[in-house]
Amino acid sequence: MALRAPFWLQLFEQAGPAASGGRREQLVAALRTAMLRGVLSPGQQLPSSRQLAADIGVSRVTVEAAYGRLEAEGYLWRAVGRGSFVALDAPAAGPVARVRRVETPAVLSQRGQQLAARGGCRDPARPLPFAAGSPDLRAFPLELWRQLLARHLRRGPTLLGYGDPQGDPRLREAIAAYLNAARGLRCTADQVLVLSSSQQALQLAALMLLDADDPVWLEDPGYRGAASAFEAAGARRVAVPVDAEGLSWSPDQPWPKLIYLTPSHQYPLGMALSLRRRRALLAQAAQHRTWIIEDDYDSEFHYDGKPMPALQGLDEAGRVLYLGTFSKVLFPSLRLAYMVLPAALVGPFVEARTTQDGHSPQLAQAVTADFITAGHFAAHLRLMRRLYAQRRDALLEALRPMADWLQPQPSPGGLQLAALLPEGEEPALSRAAAARGLETPSLSRLYGGAPRRDGWILGYAALTPGEIAEACQQLRQVRL
Amino acid sequence: MALRAPFWLQLFEQAGPAASGGRREQLVAALRTAMLRGVLSPGQQLPSSRQLAADIGVSRVTVEAAYGRLEAEGYLWRAVGRGSFVALDAPAAGPVARVRRVETPAVLSQRGQQLAARGGCRDPARPLPFAAGSPDLRAFPLELWRQLLARHLRRGPTLLGYGDPQGDPRLREAIAAYLNAARGLRCTADQVLVLSSSQQALQLAALMLLDADDPVWLEDPGYRGAASAFEAAGARRVAVPVDAEGLSWSPDQPWPKLIYLTPSHQYPLGMALSLRRRRALLAQAAQHRTWIIEDDYDSEFHYDGKPMPALQGLDEAGRVLYLGTFSKVLFPSLRLAYMVLPAALVGPFVEARTTQDGHSPQLAQAVTADFITAGHFAAHLRLMRRLYAQRRDALLEALRPMADWLQPQPSPGGLQLAALLPEGEEPALSRAAAARGLETPSLSRLYGGAPRRDGWILGYAALTPGEIAEACQQLRQVRL
Repeated sequence: MALRAPFWLQLFEQAGPAASGGRREQLVAALRTAMLRGVLSPGQQLPSSRQLAADIGVSRVTVEAAYGRLEAEGYLWRAVGRGSFVALDAPAAGPVARVRRVETPAVLSQRGQQLAARGGCRDPARPLPFAAGSPDLRAFPLELWRQLLARHLRRGPTLLGYGDPQGDPRLREAIAAYLNAARGLRCTADQVLVLSSSQQALQLAALMLLDADDPVWLEDPGYRGAASAFEAAGARRVAVPVDAEGLSWSPDQPWPKLIYLTPSHQYPLGMALSLRRRRALLAQAAQHRTWIIEDDYDSEFHYDGKPMPALQGLDEAGRVLYLGTFSKVLFPSLRLAYMVLPAALVGPFVEARTTQDGHSPQLAQAVTADFITAGHFAAHLRLMRRLYAQRRDALLEALRPMADWLQPQPSPGGLQLAALLPEGEEPALSRAAAARGLETPSLSRLYGGAPRRDGWILGYAALTPGEIAEACQQLRQVRL
Repeated sequence: MALRAPFWLQLFEQAGPAASGGRREQLVAALRTAMLRGVLSPGQQLPSSRQLAADIGVSRVTVEAAYGRLEAEGYLWRAVGRGSFVALDAPAAGPVARVRRVETPAVLSQRGQQLAARGGCRDPARPLPFAAGSPDLRAFPLELWRQLLARHLRRGPTLLGYGDPQGDPRLREAIAAYLNAARGLRCTADQVLVLSSSQQALQLAALMLLDADDPVWLEDPGYRGAASAFEAAGARRVAVPVDAEGLSWSPDQPWPKLIYLTPSHQYPLGMALSLRRRRALLAQAAQHRTWIIEDDYDSEFHYDGKPMPALQGLDEAGRVLYLGTFSKVLFPSLRLAYMVLPAALVGPFVEARTTQDGHSPQLAQAVTADFITAGHFAAHLRLMRRLYAQRRDALLEALRPMADWLQPQPSPGGLQLAALLPEGEEPALSRAAAARGLETPSLSRLYGGAPRRDGWILGYAALTPGEIAEACQQLRQVRL
């Protein structure tokens, strides 16, 4: 039975104007939708192109073009002298009015379910005082960065193509030179692998060095991002307490396959791993063939004297993977971090990286290399170190009136400091602080196994002394 | 026994000038190195600061400062009235002259070993003719890109901080609008997840949707990067042949957990998945709760008529994960790709992404969003489509004299075309081509299980018609 003209017009008009391709595309979309939803049935004959053109008020050429497209896509079959027919199997008939998508419940893999249940690790996009880990972006030399970027973009498209998965050789040279001079590493550019973030580095190391259920030592309390990365890789997390000398393992503990730690400036408590422990750790790691990931996440910001040189520089056995990031020293959304690898791991890690995300953006790497080699990096670090040291002092000063309930821990460096709260009071005090527009990252939640301590990790680096004073005025109110 | 003055001077001078911190740092480094290498023994007394200052010709203040540093680091212990002593346990004594690092053989995890043995998937950094998959970067509007970047950098530091792990909302809106209009998707910005590359997308999907040994169907021949990603995730690869209608599974084959395919333009053979197969695939996927990854990697470049709309637009059951990348349509080192996810997967995938690499660079995302919403993207695509169509035609024309041994396959779009070679001749001909400075990516190596066919995947998009003619002149010589 032939359908009446208003039917076709309605079908055509309901489809609405196409984004491009005009009335032809509008007609193609209208017919395709009608067929998919069973409004037009399989085998049904369509009007001739002349007839349909008249019915809906378009040219015959437009209808012919639309029929041609639908035929090419397999929606129609056309036979000379007989006409055009709907070619589809019948889909379930349904109302034309509105697309309704039935989503089946997601079925994740077991590891996917675990990962979703544990949750990820997000950095705050718009930090409030005292969000932790945020550098002061207002002090970043944006105009200089823009000029360096512009220079590369004016040089033509060389940096647009695929890059070295290990990282821009110039940037790797600059990183190696900086680390050898400033952090006491002993490495060459060949050992440097440029990545997008510490998180990616941890995930790559977990994949390459650990199988499911392999034990990993993590500092307790410690950095949650590391725990997430190792757990996502199926490793078994062993929480090892820290004391005033840093990681404090017991002699009879079975030695793990990998140890992750922050020896320069323990996250979150701030102490350095003592030299004695460093040497014991390296000796035992060599003996047990344990890998060590040294996360040197903010050692650039050390205010009282010089920080201790990196563990990597003492490692004679090639067990240390050194990890650094530009997120804190340049800016987080640059998304550049790096690992310094034992020579034997470089090849396999680079191969693995190609299966993960290929390589890091070339323009960002080239500009970062310029920034370091031209001396801007050292100058920026000096400036920020001075700025942040003042801010730490300002925070300690402003916290003094709260000394009876909020006890800052030693903090020779970094972007934040840990402060202890009376036992059991953290949840209530954090809620009270949040009500006053303050972010007070939890210390107790960074524990995995050891007896938890209540406290806050107070970020100060992104706040001016005035903002610190103001925020501390608010903070004082939460326990009066 | 006290060591003589020349010893100390030599020690000091061998350390060489420090990068910063002058003579104090030079002395710290000299003493630290000597202790670590056993040149100074544990318990050994050092000269008084007055004595050492005289011996090496620096001020006493410098020596005091150096001793103070070494004491703080744990290398020295000092007792008032008694002097300064080396505090270390004895390391193995060794020559001072040159650091020798003993690397133990790397011990990778089992999955790490497998990954390293299989090798990764690299894209060519400096493509020769006829490297596959390379867009023409010379035609990219670099100056416009620079202006858009500069505008954001002049706006201050808002884009420097941590970003939304799902991706810049403006970019997600732009992607959804583009895909709905141009590729027939039905999605909102909430379903879009911005990532660094297709490779990352595949790896994330494998992690979240597959457990070890879960079967995955891959087209045979097919994209090696996908095989790498799924194998790295421990999945079991099932090679499914393709014919003129695309993926060709057998009815009695056990249905897998996930299917990866390139329905718009099969990689590498170039055909589209027929509508009949599309509908069967979606119906069966809904029934068996199989996930489908639709990699629409270069459908923007379709030259003969319009490409078929995406599979995602036909999916009523929420089984399709749609995958696209800006590597081919903008530039590879931008490192931006995206997935359009069934709504139920968005939350878990975004969480998982935070444990992988946090988020994509904000500046690149903001500029890409501008580029799309201001209409530059559509204009660039139109231009490139015209350019690449001419180049494909130029290549087909230039290959005609070789028709007796090199048979181009249908290629309605894309950046490269497959061409078949006489059986058994691929290795020798590829070597001959390489000797003439040509890259002729192998077809046979893209097979996983099906009877392999010899051939090449010839990339043409990055070559001007003149360069194509020239390269084909060379190619003709390899089988004369």
